[in-house]
Amino acid sequence: MTTLEHQTPATDHLEDNEDLVAGTPVPPPPTPEEQRRLEELYTDFGSENLIPLWTQIGDLMPSSPRPKAVPHVWRWNTLLPLAQRAGDLVPVGRGGERRAIALANPGLGGQPFATPTLWAAIQYLGGHEVAPEHRHSQNAFRFVVEGEGVWTVVDGDPVRMSRGDFLLTPGWRFHGHHNETDQPMAWIDGLDIPLVHYTDTSFFEFGADRVTDSSTPRLSRSEELWCHPGLRPLSQLQNTVSSPIGAYRWEHTDAALRAQLELEAAGHPATVERGHAAVRYVNPTTGGDVMPTIRAEFHRLTAGTATRTRREVGSSVFQVFDGTGTVVLGGPEHGTEHQVGKGDLVVVPSWVPYQVVADGAGLDLFTFSDHPVVEKLALARTHIEDNA
Amino acid sequence: MTTLEHQTPATDHLEDNEDLVAGTPVPPPPTPEEQRRLEELYTDFGSENLIPLWTQIGDLMPSSPRPKAVPHVWRWNTLLPLAQRAGDLVPVGRGGERRAIALANPGLGGQPFATPTLWAAIQYLGGHEVAPEHRHSQNAFRFVVEGEGVWTVVDGDPVRMSRGDFLLTPGWRFHGHHNETDQPMAWIDGLDIPLVHYTDTSFFEFGADRVTDSSTPRLSRSEELWCHPGLRPLSQLQNTVSSPIGAYRWEHTDAALRAQLELEAAGHPATVERGHAAVRYVNPTTGGDVMPTIRAEFHRLTAGTATRTRREVGSSVFQVFDGTGTVVLGGPEHGTEHQVGKGDLVVVPSWVPYQVVADGAGLDLFTFSDHPVVEKLALARTHIEDNA
Amino acid sequence: MTTLEHQTPATDHLEDNEDLVAGTPVPPPPTPEEQRRLEELYTDFGSENLIPLWTQIGDLMPSSPRPKAVPHVWRWNTLLPLAQRAGDLVPVGRGGERRAIALANPGLGGQPFATPTLWAAIQYLGGHEVAPEHRHSQNAFRFVVEGEGVWTVVDGDPVRMSRGDFLLTPGWRFHGHHNETDQPMAWIDGLDIPLVHYTDTSFFEFGADRVTDSSTPRLSRSEELWCHPGLRPLSQLQNTVSSPIGAYRWEHTDAALRAQLELEAAGHPATVERGHAAVRYVNPTTGGDVMPTIRAEFHRLTAGTATRTRREVGSSVFQVFDGTGTVVLGGPEHGTEHQVGKGDLVVVPSWVPYQVVADGAGLDLFTFSDHPVVEKLALARTHIEDNA
Amino acid sequence: MTTLEHQTPATDHLEDNEDLVAGTPVPPPPTPEEQRRLEELYTDFGSENLIPLWTQIGDLMPSSPRPKAVPHVWRWNTLLPLAQRAGDLVPVGRGGERRAIALANPGLGGQPFATPTLWAAIQYLGGHEVAPEHRHSQNAFRFVVEGEGVWTVVDGDPVRMSRGDFLLTPGWRFHGHHNETDQPMAWIDGLDIPLVHYTDTSFFEFGADRVTDSSTPRLSRSEELWCHPGLRPLSQLQNTVSSPIGAYRWEHTDAALRAQLELEAAGHPATVERGHAAVRYVNPTTGGDVMPTIRAEFHRLTAGTATRTRREVGSSVFQVFDGTGTVVLGGPEHGTEHQVGKGDLVVVPSWVPYQVVADGAGLDLFTFSDHPVVEKLALARTHIEDNA
Repeated sequence: MTTLEHQTPATDHLEDNEDLVAGTPVPPPPTPEEQRRLEELYTDFGSENLIPLWTQIGDLMPSSPRPKAVPHVWRWNTLLPLAQRAGDLVPVGRGGERRAIALANPGLGGQPFATPTLWAAIQYLGGHEVAPEHRHSQNAFRFVVEGEGVWTVVDGDPVRMSRGDFLLTPGWRFHGHHNETDQPMAWIDGLDIPLVHYTDTSFFEFGADRVTDSSTPRLSRSEELWCHPGLRPLSQLQNTVSSPIGAYRWEHTDAALRAQLELEAAGHPATVERGHAAVRYVNPTTGGDVMPTIRAEFHRLTAGTATRTRREVGSSVFQVFDGTGTVVLGGPEHGTEHQVGKGDLVVVPSWVPYQVVADGAGLDLFTFSDHPVVEKLALARTHIEDNA
Repeated sequence: MTTLEHQTPATDHLEDNEDLVAGTPVPPPPTPEEQRRLEELYTDFGSENLIPLWTQIGDLMPSSPRPKAVPHVWRWNTLLPLAQRAGDLVPVGRGGERRAIALANPGLGGQPFATPTLWAAIQYLGGHEVAPEHRHSQNAFRFVVEGEGVWTVVDGDPVRMSRGDFLLTPGWRFHGHHNETDQPMAWIDGLDIPLVHYTDTSFFEFGADRVTDSSTPRLSRSEELWCHPGLRPLSQLQNTVSSPIGAYRWEHTDAALRAQLELEAAGHPATVERGHAAVRYVNPTTGGDVMPTIRAEFHRLTAGTATRTRREVGSSVFQVFDGTGTVVLGGPEHGTEHQVGKGDLVVVPSWVPYQVVADGAGLDLFTFSDHPVVEKLALARTHIEDNA
Repeated sequence: MTTLEHQTPATDHLEDNEDLVAGTPVPPPPTPEEQRRLEELYTDFGSENLIPLWTQIGDLMPSSPRPKAVPHVWRWNTLLPLAQRAGDLVPVGRGGERRAIALANPGLGGQPFATPTLWAAIQYLGGHEVAPEHRHSQNAFRFVVEGEGVWTVVDGDPVRMSRGDFLLTPGWRFHGHHNETDQPMAWIDGLDIPLVHYTDTSFFEFGADRVTDSSTPRLSRSEELWCHPGLRPLSQLQNTVSSPIGAYRWEHTDAALRAQLELEAAGHPATVERGHAAVRYVNPTTGGDVMPTIRAEFHRLTAGTATRTRREVGSSVFQVFDGTGTVVLGGPEHGTEHQVGKGDLVVVPSWVPYQVVADGAGLDLFTFSDHPVVEKLALARTHIEDNA
Repeated sequence: MTTLEHQTPATDHLEDNEDLVAGTPVPPPPTPEEQRRLEELYTDFGSENLIPLWTQIGDLMPSSPRPKAVPHVWRWNTLLPLAQRAGDLVPVGRGGERRAIALANPGLGGQPFATPTLWAAIQYLGGHEVAPEHRHSQNAFRFVVEGEGVWTVVDGDPVRMSRGDFLLTPGWRFHGHHNETDQPMAWIDGLDIPLVHYTDTSFFEFGADRVTDSSTPRLSRSEELWCHPGLRPLSQLQNTVSSPIGAYRWEHTDAALRAQLELEAAGHPATVERGHAAVRYVNPTTGGDVMPTIRAEFHRLTAGTATRTRREVGSSVFQVFDGTGTVVLGGPEHGTEHQVGKGDLVVVPSWVPYQVVADGAGLDLFTFSDHPVVEKLALARTHIEDNA
């Protein structure tokens, strides 16, 4: 129900843009007759499924991204009890498929989307429960902030889940989970559900009602084949769109970060900025991102380290893995500070400035984003403020 | 405002999927007490900005794409008069920027989007009018179904617009238009506005209020440099994300299609199927699509030729350039037939079956799509029915 | 039969390298007993098929390339009469396959190689003669400095040969030639025979004794499909290692060069340096070189233009297509000047400085090189002297 | 000094090719006058640095590769004592640079080349000796069949050398070695010296006379940064032509091979053929070969395993790391069997059939080849015989 006010040329666009030359000639206001004919024209547009650009351009083509999604923090000590209550009340099984509870960005109108492209959820599996197998176009991963005892079975390969592990379920691979213990386990799921939904690219298929292999090996077959640094199995020379590695283990991530900080301490280049070690999880067949739509990284800040303030085109989600600190969302001047601790989740929409500052015990952060999408579409920009 | 009904596990998902094993154990219905605690849980989810997957999965992860966008046809003889009326009433200039009127897909809730990713509009420029220069992240092209007399100036290079020409304005290049004649001219614009809007990746900047070069050469400098088949200027060895060619001229497109049909007639492989010649517009620095988000092609069907019915993941827009024919949207059994003629625009959402049948004079079709996006994200699928 | 003198540590290496710190401690000369044992050791090396590095390093690993091949000029008015005499005396047919006479670089010990990687030959086909079909791993092209009347048939596609055309026969495609006229015709062949020979990668197969299609179309089917600027046949979306274009016609090359010089004259960037227009022949499926091992370009110098002196890693061959000028080989100080005219061929080995200066009528130059090989192996370097 | 016999059309080419149609018309023998004129023509060719193709084609373009290099085996227990004698007699230092003794293929006319493209040598460094730093275009690696105590310093990063390690010195990185112990150490060097020499692409520069960092860390900085499976340092996102990893440690290679055989034993696909595990050393920034010109792999055959007979375009060198077995060179019928044990080196020229059979204790084999060159130039072919 657009009113005529909205249909005059979009002035916010003008105000917004500093480069606009002052003194652009403003057309004279319409006469009453012109006004009547304009209203008639807009009505006719509407009945023919047409909308003029000139009333929309300010919203559609802003001078810099104006995401509807807002920066927001979800607390682990809120999420976990709610997941536990769901564990008591809602069965896991065919139809609902997973006991996963999604972060719904307050700016996105009640959709279960952390950002326009990313889904983030806490998933909860009770003792001895099984989540049935299925597969879908959507790319998925799990990250484990605490606990153990569940195996996820990906195309028949059982993958142990433990604290600090990052686990992949790339698009169109069958997967189900089973809890081998008496204890429940919770973790986070990350997927590209919103992007796949928006672009109408979803395919979904049910698999076995129970997992196809209920064995509980320490390492998945994918790790046995692929997790030897710099070595590629000669039987696997075809590159794959997504990483063939089922689990990126905490021991490796932790060792890589420690090594970077030790190298820094010894005076060698290794970290991304002083006191800030970081790794990207990659597809060993290409050296690129683990999945076509999702980037995942792990960052470690030493005690007291403050990152430079960054803005990036594209959206991201952070989860504190260990330690405490402060996240400043919205820029150094107008930003909001959030104290964060273990398990807390922070959503950073596109182009929102953010900074992370570690408390005295340092801060370990897992993060994922849609940056591979933005890069592939040649829409990427990064701005790093020099706020030393 | 979700009701509890929506919050029982999504059953449409079950119905939808033929592979589901019958006899999946259905959990017993909740007791009144459980029902009360469930309602309480869902309320608490809501206040914490959380939404469960199990109530949404059927909608979010369908077994095959269920686009909200619908197949639709817009008629040139409806569009053009409305554009002419806008030409009389709405000035073109800074702020509104362009006199462009967008196809608003009836399924997309009043947004000016042809599909979730693509913008398609008729643009109209009166005699001697000037559309001011600006640049934006969004990738744009123009296709001219009739008329001439306008030059579009892209980063200072004046590009003549004439019937059958396909013209590029890749992301972040300044561009403005000016009409050198007394006569108005109309053409279609295609952009990735919806995708850029959805992913929050828009940057926009105003340029000169009038075009920076008002000369009217027959060929743009980009063509002088690049439009010699198989030859690359030695001064231009750096590959570019988008094509450096400003205009793909009708004479070349037409000649390429004629050649394919002559080769076919002489018994050589050249066409995509019998009676169906087609070319893709490409970036000569890579051989790939002209822009990172948009594919554009031109198809020619000889008299009476019927294409095989296709479904593709991703959405597309067709415009009839010449001739008449029938477009069948929605599959051979349940599909709807549309008679189409010169200038008519057809929108085909993701995974909707479509077939084109040429009348006795043959049919020339311009088309653009978001298929490069879908391919880069490894979400592409094509199904071609064998309906010979 | 190496003598002991050669087996003392290589001193030319030392002299050669300006960076060597003076005063490196020189080991004392060997005693007679040591000398005897050394000789015994070298003898034992020899009988066990071993050779020490320390006696060879100066030759094997020079501080910059020291090609055995030398810069050299062959004259068209020497080549053509010799080819004509061969035409009278040597039949063309199965076994010898082609009446081609190769440039044998005087530095390469009597091998028929223009450079270590490139073969260049004049080929001569008498009136109504036929060169039988065959195919081989070696990549081949022809360039026509004068004449017409021959068609080369490549995998069944007849390709007309005329002055200024550049024609491809990529590896493993059947090809034969036939002369449709009473007049003989001569052209140059370029191949990677020396590289393929050296790397032991040659496969060869005979085809039809006469050409499989003796028709004489003006354009080959490959041109009909591919020579429309910026347009790719939709039936040909698979990229190919070599260009699918059979002939790059003179009219396009000439037009591209003229356009660059006109743009330059109008003040726009287009040429590689003032007065020096140039195009590279490319594979339209990738924008890269026409064949995996050979780069080919065409250069035009306006009257009086002198190129800057260049050195490039990798070797190249130039042929004057039109005009006259001077080629300076070996650097501005010690170089040798050669007056060159139509048809003359110049070989430039790796890292030899060269400069071309056009006489008053300008100079048109065809050139080919092994630079794709050097680039793929990450061994490329270019040095351009600032000799304005 | 070619005689006229060689200058009649090459008949070996004809005999060689089974596809040649019988009954090709043979031209009549030349008359004495024609013979005289022919001789005169060939003389004139010679004085103008020209050589006809028709006398050379059989040798230049064989129907399949006919390498001059021959299959050959060098014994470790021959090589090592000779290297020790060189250690006593020849100092290591500036000028000679390295105490390396190269395998000289008996077919290559006394050049220090294992194959036309590959250099393989035993290098020997006495207790407390230092090999001075230098850098060169040539890509180099070391593989250690036994011993320890030497560090190689690559662009300032000290890399420990121990049994089973594979160490890289890609082109143009400074490197020197120093032995920290009283004991000598020997290893093999592999380089692309012959290819770089043949293509005239060598640059060489001296560095420090002693190593720039004489510390002796267990792991190099390159390993600390890069050897965490699936993890990439965020500070190192630029892909590099060669692998950034300085050392591929035996413990990882061994673990990867053991894992493949365990997976095979458990019924899962993992090995290249039954009983034959293998890994390729790769560049983690791309998943491709470690250096642009050299491929390196490690193979393990279980007791009694016989590989299928293979032919590959391109040449390779094998070194037995452990165990004993038989190498059959030249094909199942005409091939020669060689018993091989620890340290023995086997050279396989292009297209020579080879098969490896493990004795009762199994066989561990290191191998390197020029296959990346052959693949990049689109000249690769592999033939695997079905000799089960």
